[in-house]
Amino acid sequence: MELTPLIRRAAQVLETPFLVLDNAYVRENYLRLKNSINNVEIFYAVKANSHPSILETLRDLGSSFDVASKGEIVKLMDLGIPTKRMSFGNTIKKEKDIKFAWENGVEYFAVDAEMEVEKIARNAPGAKVYGRLAMSSNDSDWPLSGKFGTDVDHLIHILKYAKRKGLVPYGVSFHVGSQSYNKYKWKEAILTASEVFEKLHKEKINLKLLNLGGGIPVQHTKPVPSVEEIGEVINEAVNEYLGWVKGLRIISEPGRSMVGNAGIIASRVILRSKKGTQTWVFLDAGVFHGLMETIENFRYEVIVEGKEDTKKMTMTLAGPTCDSVDTIYDEIELPINIDYNDIVYFINTGAYTSEYATYFNGIEPIKVYTIEELEHMLQGEFSPINENSLY
Amino acid sequence: MELTPLIRRAAQVLETPFLVLDNAYVRENYLRLKNSINNVEIFYAVKANSHPSILETLRDLGSSFDVASKGEIVKLMDLGIPTKRMSFGNTIKKEKDIKFAWENGVEYFAVDAEMEVEKIARNAPGAKVYGRLAMSSNDSDWPLSGKFGTDVDHLIHILKYAKRKGLVPYGVSFHVGSQSYNKYKWKEAILTASEVFEKLHKEKINLKLLNLGGGIPVQHTKPVPSVEEIGEVINEAVNEYLGWVKGLRIISEPGRSMVGNAGIIASRVILRSKKGTQTWVFLDAGVFHGLMETIENFRYEVIVEGKEDTKKMTMTLAGPTCDSVDTIYDEIELPINIDYNDIVYFINTGAYTSEYATYFNGIEPIKVYTIEELEHMLQGEFSPINENSLY
Repeated sequence: MELTPLIRRAAQVLETPFLVLDNAYVRENYLRLKNSINNVEIFYAVKANSHPSILETLRDLGSSFDVASKGEIVKLMDLGIPTKRMSFGNTIKKEKDIKFAWENGVEYFAVDAEMEVEKIARNAPGAKVYGRLAMSSNDSDWPLSGKFGTDVDHLIHILKYAKRKGLVPYGVSFHVGSQSYNKYKWKEAILTASEVFEKLHKEKINLKLLNLGGGIPVQHTKPVPSVEEIGEVINEAVNEYLGWVKGLRIISEPGRSMVGNAGIIASRVILRSKKGTQTWVFLDAGVFHGLMETIENFRYEVIVEGKEDTKKMTMTLAGPTCDSVDTIYDEIELPINIDYNDIVYFINTGAYTSEYATYFNGIEPIKVYTIEELEHMLQGEFSPINENSLY
Repeated sequence: MELTPLIRRAAQVLETPFLVLDNAYVRENYLRLKNSINNVEIFYAVKANSHPSILETLRDLGSSFDVASKGEIVKLMDLGIPTKRMSFGNTIKKEKDIKFAWENGVEYFAVDAEMEVEKIARNAPGAKVYGRLAMSSNDSDWPLSGKFGTDVDHLIHILKYAKRKGLVPYGVSFHVGSQSYNKYKWKEAILTASEVFEKLHKEKINLKLLNLGGGIPVQHTKPVPSVEEIGEVINEAVNEYLGWVKGLRIISEPGRSMVGNAGIIASRVILRSKKGTQTWVFLDAGVFHGLMETIENFRYEVIVEGKEDTKKMTMTLAGPTCDSVDTIYDEIELPINIDYNDIVYFINTGAYTSEYATYFNGIEPIKVYTIEELEHMLQGEFSPINENSLY
């Protein structure tokens, strides 16, 4: 997302930290993804950012939604989104949440374990279930292996078990890992998924759904493949390995790739100090108030207002709480003259930031504004009359 | 904290997860600490758990409070706690928070950097400042080294600088690291602190305050020294190294040791599955909803209701969200027959649990009840009349 004059001005006059969201990027991301994968149905992963403006933008574009809990279902229902457009993609569901979802019209449920099948059979008889494959995710930033999914043979067993329990074995899902850099991961995953389709087809179980999960990367500090490049790999792999499946539905569950580049966090330096040979810079934003992913060393692009071209040196960047874990980056290149009150931006931080925020240390979670709200708050400031007086 | 029949019953009938607090333990912890360290003034570290019942209990005992932000100050003021009983112990303060604190009567401020001195001098002229020493913390569970404090020479420089800026150089603080297992760490820290007292005394700056920080451990899975044993070490060290200081004030900032053993988290198994050779157990409580400290491998005692004496095996224990980071323990010994809907308790989880909770995945932060609230909610169930029908 571009660091516009409006955002720079907002950072000058509003209290930091805040996250600003520009839903024009969400619209563009939605349309690019829709155009990149043939016949794709998009189920936005609400957990990435559940801000109402994002959900409304996607609702109006006709998107569907991947939900993780009853809380997310209720939030979507409150925005007038029909449950037919929701899929319960969390493989670890509370039984009462399954019941609530089914009674309110949610049709699709993810499974990766026999016990989950039993829970769904008890509470959502006749529901469509898709089984999640485990993928290795060495080429991604935020690992997902282990906790979710299982192997081909186990998944086949689970889907057959679902059928015996009165459910509809409906498809296969996978997740190549959040922020995946290797586009051929999708090809490998689709090939693996096709094994499940084929083996079950031989047993007269005809799956209909290929769920591509998420994992499409957002540009931060490393170069990434574009959604078009990834789409091309997916389209070819679907044709090659699943071209024979009649009425195949393809769904994608983008989270980060839908909203990551639609946000910028603005914060300020509240202390700079030297400890031994190391320089520490402390911000009013931190791990527990928006930058949780940095503790797994997720690298955002960091810009210091007015010092973009200054010589840099290695420093430690930390948040404002009385907790060592609240250290954003142990080592980061920052402008050598970064100083008190400087504005520090974290670019493309629309996903998995405000959702993790806490009230730890008595500090409020990061505020979230849309571009429209910023415009309204700064109304008139950009007119010729008072431009000089305010800058 | 003892797992009483009331708590066991509550876990059966109330929705999990929840944290139950018993303030009788807080009272006992307060009095034990008060009796263990000569002339100690206790400043409870609010960040450990800011539940109103804890703050009220300590208020009524006459405790003072260590605060980390304006938010915490306001919370205490709203409970009728005078600002004279607060110390602003965060070394990374927002300037407007310093101003708010000072204007409302907070007198004591922590510093470990020149820039922090300048911020305090601008906004709290004449305030008493204490300088924080950095300690290595190899003998503790939750490391604090690096981010906070500085060395003796630098601290002396900072306190002299504070004097030149019109502030009162008032004392020295340190923190041996949260959950510190080695009682002699305090002796070492007091010896180091006494160097600052002595060197400044020679320059006619007479410090008055020794701030012992926190770090007194709570019993989890490893044996820990008692507060009485630690107190003995502290008393001896104070006599030996600081006996010469006239009017010395000693303060302690307990967080975990004040409330850690005053809480139990009750959760339930919502899924058990096997992936390859590994057994996974998923709970409705997790890293983002109360068990944040487990990601740094903080080991709580874990009890499975009714299966305390069952043979155990190594499993992976995880939370309910669509995030691999939400894995509580990669390896933990659990009853071999742990199953769906089993109740799982985390013992002594009163500190640093609910404070880190988020709304991630649309799941509410963990609920918190006091023992009195549980009693009220389960009223009558323990009477002889309906005991049989309910059990």
